[in-house]
Amino acid sequence: MSADLPPDEFRSAMHRVAEMVADYLEEVEEYPVFPAVAPGEVAASLPVSPPVEGEPIDRVLDDYKALIEPAMTHWNHPGFMAYIATTGSGPGILGESLAAALNANAMLWRTSPAATELEERVCDWLRQMLDLPAAFSGHINDTASMSTLLALAAARQRLYPETRRKGVAGGPVMTIYCSDQTHSSIEKSAIALGLGLDQVRKIESDGDLRLRPEKLAAAIEEDLAAGFHPMAVVACAGTTSTGSVDPIRAVVDICRRHCLWLHIDAAYAGGAAICAEYRALMEGLEEADSIVVNPHKWLFTPVDCSILFNRHPDLLREAFWVLPEYLKTDDGAVTNLMDLGVQLGKRFRSLKLWMVIRAFGVRGMQERIREHCRLAGWLAGEIESAPGFELAAPVPFAIVAFRARLDGASGEQEDEFNERLMARINAAGPVMLSHSKLHGRYVLRVVIGNLRTTEKHVRAVWRLIRQEAAALLAERKAV
Amino acid sequence: MSADLPPDEFRSAMHRVAEMVADYLEEVEEYPVFPAVAPGEVAASLPVSPPVEGEPIDRVLDDYKALIEPAMTHWNHPGFMAYIATTGSGPGILGESLAAALNANAMLWRTSPAATELEERVCDWLRQMLDLPAAFSGHINDTASMSTLLALAAARQRLYPETRRKGVAGGPVMTIYCSDQTHSSIEKSAIALGLGLDQVRKIESDGDLRLRPEKLAAAIEEDLAAGFHPMAVVACAGTTSTGSVDPIRAVVDICRRHCLWLHIDAAYAGGAAICAEYRALMEGLEEADSIVVNPHKWLFTPVDCSILFNRHPDLLREAFWVLPEYLKTDDGAVTNLMDLGVQLGKRFRSLKLWMVIRAFGVRGMQERIREHCRLAGWLAGEIESAPGFELAAPVPFAIVAFRARLDGASGEQEDEFNERLMARINAAGPVMLSHSKLHGRYVLRVVIGNLRTTEKHVRAVWRLIRQEAAALLAERKAV
Repeated sequence: MSADLPPDEFRSAMHRVAEMVADYLEEVEEYPVFPAVAPGEVAASLPVSPPVEGEPIDRVLDDYKALIEPAMTHWNHPGFMAYIATTGSGPGILGESLAAALNANAMLWRTSPAATELEERVCDWLRQMLDLPAAFSGHINDTASMSTLLALAAARQRLYPETRRKGVAGGPVMTIYCSDQTHSSIEKSAIALGLGLDQVRKIESDGDLRLRPEKLAAAIEEDLAAGFHPMAVVACAGTTSTGSVDPIRAVVDICRRHCLWLHIDAAYAGGAAICAEYRALMEGLEEADSIVVNPHKWLFTPVDCSILFNRHPDLLREAFWVLPEYLKTDDGAVTNLMDLGVQLGKRFRSLKLWMVIRAFGVRGMQERIREHCRLAGWLAGEIESAPGFELAAPVPFAIVAFRARLDGASGEQEDEFNERLMARINAAGPVMLSHSKLHGRYVLRVVIGNLRTTEKHVRAVWRLIRQEAAALLAERKAV
Repeated sequence: MSADLPPDEFRSAMHRVAEMVADYLEEVEEYPVFPAVAPGEVAASLPVSPPVEGEPIDRVLDDYKALIEPAMTHWNHPGFMAYIATTGSGPGILGESLAAALNANAMLWRTSPAATELEERVCDWLRQMLDLPAAFSGHINDTASMSTLLALAAARQRLYPETRRKGVAGGPVMTIYCSDQTHSSIEKSAIALGLGLDQVRKIESDGDLRLRPEKLAAAIEEDLAAGFHPMAVVACAGTTSTGSVDPIRAVVDICRRHCLWLHIDAAYAGGAAICAEYRALMEGLEEADSIVVNPHKWLFTPVDCSILFNRHPDLLREAFWVLPEYLKTDDGAVTNLMDLGVQLGKRFRSLKLWMVIRAFGVRGMQERIREHCRLAGWLAGEIESAPGFELAAPVPFAIVAFRARLDGASGEQEDEFNERLMARINAAGPVMLSHSKLHGRYVLRVVIGNLRTTEKHVRAVWRLIRQEAAALLAERKAV
C-alpha cells in the first residue's frame, strides 16, 4: 500500500484540479449565484456512512464537480454582491495551494521560520500601505471575530491585569462602547470573554449611521457615576451595513480622557484605506490602540486572513502566554506567534497575501479598489436620480444601500415591497443582494468588491432592479 | 487592466504550482527537516516595503521556491517527528486548492448550502468511525484550542446561564479540572473565558501520566466545601507528551455525581480511535458531553481542521446566538454554522476531509494508523532492550518518549545529556524530534504519524539516536 496517493496519481490529480479551478473561475458566471437547492438536498445526495474502501481520486473529483460545486453559493461570481466584498484572486489561490502542501503550523518560530518572518514582514507592508506608524505590529488571525476578541482581551488585561489569574468573577464590571451599527462580533466577544452582553453599550448612531461622540461621552460618564469600569470603545471605519465611518478623531479624544482602549473595526474598509483619499476618511486611525483589517475582505485574499494591528502586543503576551515544556525552545529573541492569542495551531496565511501584494503591486491594488468605488458611485448616482428609488445612506466606499419608494404607502408597506423585491432579484440567478435595516427601515444592499465584477455587471444589476421593481409594482396595481 | 490575473496566465501558473507541489512532496527529503536559517535571515531576504508595481507571477513563484520553501520547517517531511503527527495528504491538498477557488464563507446555510451540509455529513461520518452515539453532533473549527474554548463556554453557559447577559463578574467562581498532562489550551481557554488560571485545577497524574480519579474527586469536594462552583472536567484521550489516556469511565462517574461537564481532548489520539482496538482504550468516551478530534492531526488532513463533537449544541447556540439584520434569512429550519461559536467567517474545511475519507476509505485510514502504531511499537521495543536507553512512558499510540541513561550520573546530569543529545540529533538534518518533561525529568519524543514516514525512516532515526548518544558519551568521557 502506498501511504499517500501514489506520486504520479497525485501529480495528475493536481493538474486536473488546476484545470478545474481555472475553468471554474472562467465559467462561474454560468451558475446562478445562489444555487437551486432546497435545504437537505445536498445532504441527501451524500451517503450516510463513509466508504469502507478507498475510491479512485478521479471519482472523488467527479463527485465534487457534480454534487458540491453546483450547490455552492458562488462568492467568486461577479454577481455576488450580497456580503462584504471578497475575492479569492488568482495569486491568493496559488498561495493557498502551496500552503496546503507545506502544511506548516507556525506556532513557534522553530516550527516555521519562513512563515513567522513572512507574516511579520507582510503585516508590516500592509501597515505602511495604511499609513500607520511603526508602533503598530500586526499578526494574522483567521477572522475579524478573533482579531476583535483578542483586542478586547488585551484591553481587559490592561484595565484589570488580575483577569489572567483570577478571572472576571469578583472583579470590576467592565463596559464596552460602540455604535448601534457595529458588527455582531463585538457582542460575541463580550460573551466569550465573560464580560456579558449587558456590558456592551450600543450608542445610537446619527443620521449618517455614525457614532455620536457626545452620546458616547455621556454614556461613559453615566457608567462611571454608576460604578462601572469603562474598558474599551470599538469604533467603525466602515460599517457592515453601509460602510459608514465613525468620527474617529473625536472618539480618540474621549478615549484619551478616560484611558479607554480604542479598537477600530476596519475589517472591510481598511482595504480601501490603502488609497490616500479613503484613508483620509479615517483621520485619527493612527491613534487607535488596535485596528482590525481583513485582507480576505477587500484585499483579494482568499478567506481566511484577518490582521490585528496592535500597539501593545505585550499585553496580549501578558494575557495569553502559556508555555508547556514541549514547546520550549532556545532560539533566543524570536517571535513565537502562538503567544499572541488563543489558538496554538496556525496556518501559513501570510503566503497568499504576500503573493497578492507582489502580483498586483500597491498601485494595482489601489486601482482595483478605486474601480470598485467608481462602480458603486455610478450606481448610487443612478439610484439617486431614478424616480421610485432612493439611497438609504451615504456611499463612502462600495456598499450601496437603497430602497424602492412607493408613493402614498406606509413605511411598513414599503418595507414589505422591498423585501419582496430582493427575493425576486435573488431568484433571477445572475446576482445576489442582501438587506439590512437602517433607522428601522428595510433597505437593499449592493456590495461591490469582487475582481470579476465589471461595469457590465453593475449595469445589469441596476437593470434587473428596475425591471423587477416595475413588475412588482404592476402586480401590486393589478391587485 | 485585467482585474485578476489574466485567465491564461492563471491557468498556466496553477499548472506550475501543481508541478511545484508534486515535486515538493516527492523531494522534500532532500531538505533538512529544520532549515539552516538563523532568526531574522528570512526577513532580511524580503524587501522592507511592498512593491509599487505588480510583478510577473512567475517571478513571485521563483521567489517562493528560492526564499520561502527552503526556510520552512518541513512538517510534511518523513523525518518530521517533533510534534503531534500531521500530514497534508494528497487528497487534502487537492481539497484545499478547490476550497480556495470557491472562497466561500459558510457562515449561513444560504451563503454556502453545500459547505454547510457537507460539514454536517462528514462530521457524522467521523462520529460513526469513532463509534459515538448519534446524540453527538459535530462541527468544524480551526483548532483544538477553539473547539475546547467552545466546549468550556457551553459548560459555563450550562452552569451559569446568566453569563451571556451579565458576564462572569458578580457570578460564581467556576472551576475546571484536568490532569497536569493536559494541553495548554485549557489554560488559554480559562484566560479567554474570564474564568482565570487560578480556577484551573491541575490534578497530579499517576505513574503512567493519567488523571487520578481519587484526586479529582477530592479536589472537587474540597472546592465545593470552599464555595467554588465546579464547572467542567477536561480528560485526555491521548496527551500531547506521551499519548496517555485518562481513566474516562471513572471520570464520567465523578462528573455525573457532581453534574460537571465532561470534555475530552482526543485531538490527537481521536484519529487512532477509528480503529476498534484503540477506541477500546477510551472506554467511556461515548459518555462525554463534548469531545475534540483534530483531523489535521492524525487523519491526514491539512491544517486547519478540528471537530468538536457536542451533545448539547443548543447550549452553544444559547451562548453565542447573535443575529444582525443583514444576516437574517428565511430559509427555515437550516443549520447556520455561525451560531455555534465565536467566529462569523468560516472556511470550507469539510471539503478536504471528505476527500481524504473517500480517497483512503475507512479501512485505508485504519491501516495507516495501525502502521504508525506498529512503527512506534517497534521503536519502543528497540529502546526498551537497548542498554543505555529507557522508555519514559507507556506507548499506547505512536508517541515514543524515552531518554538516554547515564550510569552513575545525577538526574540533572542525565537531563543535560539528553538535552544535548536532542540538539545533536536535530542538527543532523534528516530528522526533527522534540522533548518534554515527565515527572520532572527531561525526555525525548519521537512522534510518528506522517504518511511518508516508513520503517526505513524509523530505523534511520533509531540509528541516529544511538550514534549521536555514543558520540556524546565519548566526548563526555574524553573530558
